[in-house]
Amino acid sequence: MTTKSQTLAEIGEDKLIRRLMRGVKLDGDVIAGAGDDCAVVRSTKNEHTLLKTDALVQDVHFTLDTPPSLIGRKAIARVVSDFAAMGGTPRHAMVTLVAPPSMEVAFLSGIYRGMRAIAKEYGINIVGGETSRGLVLMLSISMSGTVPSKSWLSRSEGKAGDVVLVTGRLGGSIKGKHLKFIPRLEEGRWLAVHARPHAMMDISDGLAKDLPRLALASGTHFEINVAAVPCNRGCTFDQAWGDGEDYELLLAVNPRGLKSLLRRWREAFPKLPLTVIGRLVPPGQGCPPYAVNTGWDHFALSADV
Amino acid sequence: MTTKSQTLAEIGEDKLIRRLMRGVKLDGDVIAGAGDDCAVVRSTKNEHTLLKTDALVQDVHFTLDTPPSLIGRKAIARVVSDFAAMGGTPRHAMVTLVAPPSMEVAFLSGIYRGMRAIAKEYGINIVGGETSRGLVLMLSISMSGTVPSKSWLSRSEGKAGDVVLVTGRLGGSIKGKHLKFIPRLEEGRWLAVHARPHAMMDISDGLAKDLPRLALASGTHFEINVAAVPCNRGCTFDQAWGDGEDYELLLAVNPRGLKSLLRRWREAFPKLPLTVIGRLVPPGQGCPPYAVNTGWDHFALSADV
Repeated sequence: MTTKSQTLAEIGEDKLIRRLMRGVKLDGDVIAGAGDDCAVVRSTKNEHTLLKTDALVQDVHFTLDTPPSLIGRKAIARVVSDFAAMGGTPRHAMVTLVAPPSMEVAFLSGIYRGMRAIAKEYGINIVGGETSRGLVLMLSISMSGTVPSKSWLSRSEGKAGDVVLVTGRLGGSIKGKHLKFIPRLEEGRWLAVHARPHAMMDISDGLAKDLPRLALASGTHFEINVAAVPCNRGCTFDQAWGDGEDYELLLAVNPRGLKSLLRRWREAFPKLPLTVIGRLVPPGQGCPPYAVNTGWDHFALSADV
Repeated sequence: MTTKSQTLAEIGEDKLIRRLMRGVKLDGDVIAGAGDDCAVVRSTKNEHTLLKTDALVQDVHFTLDTPPSLIGRKAIARVVSDFAAMGGTPRHAMVTLVAPPSMEVAFLSGIYRGMRAIAKEYGINIVGGETSRGLVLMLSISMSGTVPSKSWLSRSEGKAGDVVLVTGRLGGSIKGKHLKFIPRLEEGRWLAVHARPHAMMDISDGLAKDLPRLALASGTHFEINVAAVPCNRGCTFDQAWGDGEDYELLLAVNPRGLKSLLRRWREAFPKLPLTVIGRLVPPGQGCPPYAVNTGWDHFALSADV
């Protein structure tokens, strides 16, 4: 290796993934590969299969002073949130557990207790997994599930003119919500049917990073109404914009029928706000998606827990 | 945490997994959960879905002086070997990549080059994945695929009286085979149809550990014919027995029709031996499966690369 070669910190996560996936060939059974919240593959006539993998790393996504059952809960909940973003239903999970040999079994039992509880809540089977030695604790969850073939949602079909909405409130998740958030699974399926969004995704790395991702995937620019962004109590816009780990849904819908959509939403989910925060606009207007990059980057040198 | 609590090194991998999976509830769609090479879940009338996850950890499963394309190759090949053990076909893979920010992009590109090449060879789509920061490099592969619902194989239906066979030769994989082994996918499907084994699995942790696992899962004891175990060139029986990472198939078949099976095997796979190495016997005879434990344990204090 020469010292001139780029490092992960220099290239960043999104570019890395694009670089690595270059040259990956997919056959006709793959409807959507890397780049969405879940991969979509052909299964039966009425249903597609959704596939997703997601990892939690000690001292990156959690610390060892976190109650272990909440670590387990979070590991599963993050993936459920990805299925929510597709309008789908998670069904079967596999758990990869890397841990130092010196770790206490009781701690891992606690993690599994948290996983079992949330899996039961969302009707997910933990069908297997694997354990291995490692320097620090790492949990990787892979999940499969289903989505009606007629109503699956990507993040890439947003149109200029769409209004952009979010569920819930954003910001300050480090104070606790990042461990206890409620994946918007029912809401995701409801929106897939009733809002018929052009694009939807969950906000995991922060609106600052995820809204540009949605716009970039959709080939549009975007406008954000700073005053409209629903902030969690005690949070500033900057926190709502950049903190990440909100696990709310971000969607782009045709503005026609918006009023009726918001009314029906309030009837269906009276406790959870659904808020217009901006819109997608044609390239040349608004913010270009590649200029904004202040959310969480897994490899950035400045990213710290 | 008290200092009295057991550690992973003390409890060992198999017991840990049993302890963690205790209390995991599965619904009727799960045909086989944790404990086999792949999980088996209901899909269509004629086909089940197979699910598997598997991790490679730096300095446990490989070192950084390994050519990166071989690391990528091994990560995929190990999972293909698990599908082989079920008589199934892998279809879609997801890659979780944990790496230190200081790692060079070129090294990861090399890993992906190796993964893409073997994925293409076996008709597997790399449909997505995830990247995260970590202290050391870790690759976790999850894969889904299919198996005919009539011919899927577990490791738990071996019967006392079955003969035990292995494909290929065992031992000394650390000299290179652990990176370059050929998953016995075609052979696994052939055996599922022509040998109709009662039980089959791949040898990843060593015959010493995997043969007792097959017997334990099947509720039998076993006998091993030391002189019959096919050793790789330059290897002793001890190496063939304990080294691990052979990725050959281990199967238990009804002794009736054995001669004909061996003849048809030689016609189908003239270059690869299929060898009788022992048999399953009723409890009370032969070796009890829980007494033998000299293979690789991922958490054992004595386990070193």
